[in-house]
Amino acid sequence: MMRAGPAPEEIRRHNLGTLLRFVHLRGPASRARLAESLGLNRSTIMALTSDLTAAGLVREELPRGPGRRAGRPSLVVRPESTRVYVLAFDVGVDRLVVARVGLGGVVLDRREAARSRDADPSDLVGTLAAGARSLVRKADRGAVCVGAALAFPGTVRRSDDAIMFGPNLDVGDVHLGDALSRRLGLGIPVSVRNDANLGALAEHERGAGVGCDNLIYLHGDVGVGGGIIVGGRLLGGDEGFGGEIGHMVVNPGGRPCACGARGCLEAEVGERTLLDLAGREAAPGQSGRDAVRGVVDAADRGDIVAREALHRVGNRLGLGVANLVNVFNPGMVVFGGTLRDIYLGSAAQVRSVLATNALAAPRERVKLRTTELGDDTTLVGAAEFAFAEVLADPVQVLTRLRTPEDTPVS
Amino acid sequence: MMRAGPAPEEIRRHNLGTLLRFVHLRGPASRARLAESLGLNRSTIMALTSDLTAAGLVREELPRGPGRRAGRPSLVVRPESTRVYVLAFDVGVDRLVVARVGLGGVVLDRREAARSRDADPSDLVGTLAAGARSLVRKADRGAVCVGAALAFPGTVRRSDDAIMFGPNLDVGDVHLGDALSRRLGLGIPVSVRNDANLGALAEHERGAGVGCDNLIYLHGDVGVGGGIIVGGRLLGGDEGFGGEIGHMVVNPGGRPCACGARGCLEAEVGERTLLDLAGREAAPGQSGRDAVRGVVDAADRGDIVAREALHRVGNRLGLGVANLVNVFNPGMVVFGGTLRDIYLGSAAQVRSVLATNALAAPRERVKLRTTELGDDTTLVGAAEFAFAEVLADPVQVLTRLRTPEDTPVS
Repeated sequence: MMRAGPAPEEIRRHNLGTLLRFVHLRGPASRARLAESLGLNRSTIMALTSDLTAAGLVREELPRGPGRRAGRPSLVVRPESTRVYVLAFDVGVDRLVVARVGLGGVVLDRREAARSRDADPSDLVGTLAAGARSLVRKADRGAVCVGAALAFPGTVRRSDDAIMFGPNLDVGDVHLGDALSRRLGLGIPVSVRNDANLGALAEHERGAGVGCDNLIYLHGDVGVGGGIIVGGRLLGGDEGFGGEIGHMVVNPGGRPCACGARGCLEAEVGERTLLDLAGREAAPGQSGRDAVRGVVDAADRGDIVAREALHRVGNRLGLGVANLVNVFNPGMVVFGGTLRDIYLGSAAQVRSVLATNALAAPRERVKLRTTELGDDTTLVGAAEFAFAEVLADPVQVLTRLRTPEDTPVS
Repeated sequence: MMRAGPAPEEIRRHNLGTLLRFVHLRGPASRARLAESLGLNRSTIMALTSDLTAAGLVREELPRGPGRRAGRPSLVVRPESTRVYVLAFDVGVDRLVVARVGLGGVVLDRREAARSRDADPSDLVGTLAAGARSLVRKADRGAVCVGAALAFPGTVRRSDDAIMFGPNLDVGDVHLGDALSRRLGLGIPVSVRNDANLGALAEHERGAGVGCDNLIYLHGDVGVGGGIIVGGRLLGGDEGFGGEIGHMVVNPGGRPCACGARGCLEAEVGERTLLDLAGREAAPGQSGRDAVRGVVDAADRGDIVAREALHRVGNRLGLGVANLVNVFNPGMVVFGGTLRDIYLGSAAQVRSVLATNALAAPRERVKLRTTELGDDTTLVGAAEFAFAEVLADPVQVLTRLRTPEDTPVS
């Protein structure tokens, strides 16, 4: 807050990033629209676009399709989606996903593997690296990987990406990113972040929460994670551990939680508790998500035990949401992963508890929504996180990546 | 996030504000120190200082005292504390405070009135306005009031400063700021904000939390309020209602709360509950704060009932703090108002519950502290809030305020 205003060089870098970010998130746009949206004049837009084109990040084309009007058409600026891409990794308890995602957010290609819960954790890096390498081999000649990030269901320290706590997945190696980066051999680091934090980013940038700058994302896998957007930014806290909503106590003295406490949101509304209350367990080979859907479907068909289980879980979830509404005054709460299904099966209960326990002022306008990114919320978040560096300083990053490492750079 | 970089004019305004903010918060500084701290060259600092001097916001002097070194001394830039001031109002349940606070944060003068809990709410505006007018009359000739803000123990909407919920103080008029501004007749608006939100601002800028960008402030009056700093900024949420930590449920089905729910932090650790558990009540004319201190003192002297009351309250407070540590990963939690005394009387209990219920990663480095601003936390916060406009655009605001309203301004 004490910093002086930016120098012209910083402004130019900022403007390059802003323009690239615009077409990355909102799609191809005419120079005229860019000028208007970014509040810059057309000659500045032209200069910025020319630099981005030279770096291979965008291309300019005549507009396609019937929308063309008479007169000299404004050129359309498109992200180079097949030439500039990131690698996104999503580590779930039941499945692993690796995707090659192009600038503009296009999933160009993906590999997915089911994962048995007793799989050897040492296989993890090998499986992810093999999947990624097969994706890279299929990329266009001349394509550049500009970043990589991994979504992990645990607590991750911001300063060095170390996994501090991941009770639902023993990974053996807490520096997963370094190990994966070495195995990939692409010369780019792999960032590791909490999966639900990345999910919040994804919903905010490409999902249900576009335009909503105060948003809470609740993610269910085996555990319950959270990601919080405050004033348009991801809440990380002092060391990046922020957003551990799953360990907010909603029932003091309640069910024991993997973290050692009792009555945490995770322990009260997680997959295991729902299955337990419903008197079910996951069939051999069945994913937790499918088992949860089984309970919700049974309740829909009138199964009393399943209904009662969802009712109880909905009560606790509603209390957690009410606390969050009071503390954050969010515009939206988004449910994803298994919590998408749990919320859909218990929405009436959640809303009823919210009505009793949240203050009227912050409650009145809050929207409760399910993810718009299906099962890919955390994966999309990892891709967006991986794009952050190139969006912050597009030309510099591209120049560096296109320079072979053994060439001396002055 | 989609905005293009600032124009030169904005940068200049930003730099003027940054320099003024520096001397406002950190005290007089030499040009050399300003240049180094703000990352600007000395000729820019000279130009900015010259503009601020012309506007009457700072003055330059030779350094005082024995710290002078040989050679040509660097001029020291000082805020014009007696000429540029704000009015800060603090509405508590038991007392009202009005202060005239000079640039640099100096409390130049103050009026304080005890308030009986059955006082007629319609007196409120009259009492505050009379106090403020007597302060303004005593100001130096040529002094300028650059802002006014009021700390209120309730939920306040950001867009129009309307009080939505203030269960512990019936004010009769929900547009307190407008009414007070009219009564003052100084031609400046009076902003109204939640008292604990302002307390968080105060601790962050001038109290225990200077340098800590992720901070939670918990304030006890009759109710329990909260203010949260995330990434250096006050968390307001979508409409400014954020930070209502007092209505986080820490004991489902517990004591009824003024908000209609049960087991809120406010209901479980507030003044009334502590007195109730300790089998006491405030003596006639005794403030809640003094009654709370009475319980803590009794416990210190070995009173078993008082000890047990603090133990129970400490348990609930610890659970609330643990939830906040998990959700926010703050660097610091600060206790103020009556919670300062309650925390001091139950710190062991709070820390023990924190150890059980917070995750190790965010718990390890969090500091628990009491306010460094005594009983003035919320008052200081109101003053800082009132200074915000002049710090954002110093010269423009001063020029406008020094221009008589009936003079046409081109």
